Amino acid sequence: MRYVRFIFEGKKHLGAREGDKIRILGDASLESLLAQGADLETHASGKTGGQLVSEQDVTFLPVLERPTKIFCIGLNYADHTKESKYEQPTYPTIFPRYHTSLVGHGQPIVRPKVSDSLDYEGEMAVVLKKGGRHIAKADALDCVGGYALFNDGSVREYQFLTPQWTVGKNFDATGGFGPELVTPSEVPPGGRGLQLETRLNGKVVQSANTETMIFDVPTLISVISDAISLEPGDVIVTGTPSGIGWAREPKLLMHAGDVCEVSLTGFAPLRNPIVDEGAQGQG
Amino acid sequence: MRYVRFIFEGKKHLGAREGDKIRILGDASLESLLAQGADLETHASGKTGGQLVSEQDVTFLPVLERPTKIFCIGLNYADHTKESKYEQPTYPTIFPRYHTSLVGHGQPIVRPKVSDSLDYEGEMAVVLKKGGRHIAKADALDCVGGYALFNDGSVREYQFLTPQWTVGKNFDATGGFGPELVTPSEVPPGGRGLQLETRLNGKVVQSANTETMIFDVPTLISVISDAISLEPGDVIVTGTPSGIGWAREPKLLMHAGDVCEVSLTGFAPLRNPIVDEGAQGQG
Repeated sequence: MRYVRFIFEGKKHLGAREGDKIRILGDASLESLLAQGADLETHASGKTGGQLVSEQDVTFLPVLERPTKIFCIGLNYADHTKESKYEQPTYPTIFPRYHTSLVGHGQPIVRPKVSDSLDYEGEMAVVLKKGGRHIAKADALDCVGGYALFNDGSVREYQFLTPQWTVGKNFDATGGFGPELVTPSEVPPGGRGLQLETRLNGKVVQSANTETMIFDVPTLISVISDAISLEPGDVIVTGTPSGIGWAREPKLLMHAGDVCEVSLTGFAPLRNPIVDEGAQGQG
Repeated sequence: MRYVRFIFEGKKHLGAREGDKIRILGDASLESLLAQGADLETHASGKTGGQLVSEQDVTFLPVLERPTKIFCIGLNYADHTKESKYEQPTYPTIFPRYHTSLVGHGQPIVRPKVSDSLDYEGEMAVVLKKGGRHIAKADALDCVGGYALFNDGSVREYQFLTPQWTVGKNFDATGGFGPELVTPSEVPPGGRGLQLETRLNGKVVQSANTETMIFDVPTLISVISDAISLEPGDVIVTGTPSGIGWAREPKLLMHAGDVCEVSLTGFAPLRNPIVDEGAQGQG
């Protein structure tokens, strides 16, 4: 099952993909459904009463707009750790995203006024349907409610102003999240073995298989839960492979008019145009 | 006005201090009041109908249990930056707390099974009543809804396992937050000029004046808002002065049976006993 959140005729809706259309299911957020323990594998089944709308008539929202916690994993692909000039940590590197940084598929990622160092990072995100503490690795995939694409848009100058990356990873409207939440029955266990690619203006700039992650999905869930209580609706963004623009010579940065696309085998791509803060309706 | 959140007779309440008692105001959370735009300076005024209860009969909760965003400021006192062996950044160092790490006044801070490196950090927290983007420094204090004490309990081994501090700062039940939210009319502008102290088992281990912060409250609000949309209910935890246990020789760490207290001129102290994870009812 594939869920989308969007605005149609001025209202927010939850929908499920049905062929090349979207079936409106209601106005519940995925956060609220997950908190209530809804089974997303079956939630949309038989719900044939809602209007069918076309993708071109909707404005996509982040699949979750206000996740409880967003854990972003840094340095989770060895070649990216190397290009970033870090030693590979033996424990997951975790930084936050706040919900104010999220944008939906098709919506602009915004380059802030204060910096010309906006970079892309294509990633696979995992959304939890079940939480807990001290979750065993063997039980971890039972906690997964779905997978989605993420573009961890990074303002590099701010990322490296201090020892902590938080601000560079949290400018408003820099984190693409969507277009769809794909439930586990449609994805290999742990999202393993999928080809993750990022394209900037159509050119492939990142390409890696998710099986080369250093800490796989069950490990991430288990390790984080040894420290932090996980909850339904929590999101783990699993890290980006090599190819980031900041590590290139010359640097490849994103500017107004660019289009960045993240794709993963079997997922509808996440595509975002880049605009400048202060351009019409932005910032 | 001084607000507290607590459990009394099995239910969560909001209350206001009235002499040495607490007047029950209702069950609204401070987050919800702030989101609704309530004026906390006057919200409790004239509300004399609620039951008066004694502090010893209540279980304190974190003043906000699920803040929208918690920004913790690192390296915001020069002597602490020095003892931590960092260069002083010229921009605020920001790391997150997730709500699952919060505990109320009087409730145990929990030393996790996995590490014997639990340390204290006394701090002043600021809770926003108003948000926005690109907030001018001159307007920043208009955004403050109140001040509270914070103990940024840190599991140092995990803080330094990777380049990002997130996990070491987010173990469950390590962040004391309370006991009360004190509204701006009872505090000098920006919480400036107050003596901040931390005591471990009665002995002063940290002592500094808040006017020695490198980035003061208006600066923090203004600078963060240049990157990130602030919202009512957001929390900024303004950093700890020198004296942390991890920087001492020998190290001074917290263990079951210890009591850690954070105090600030004019505020009721925040006191938390330390227990081990897995002790009765914990972890």
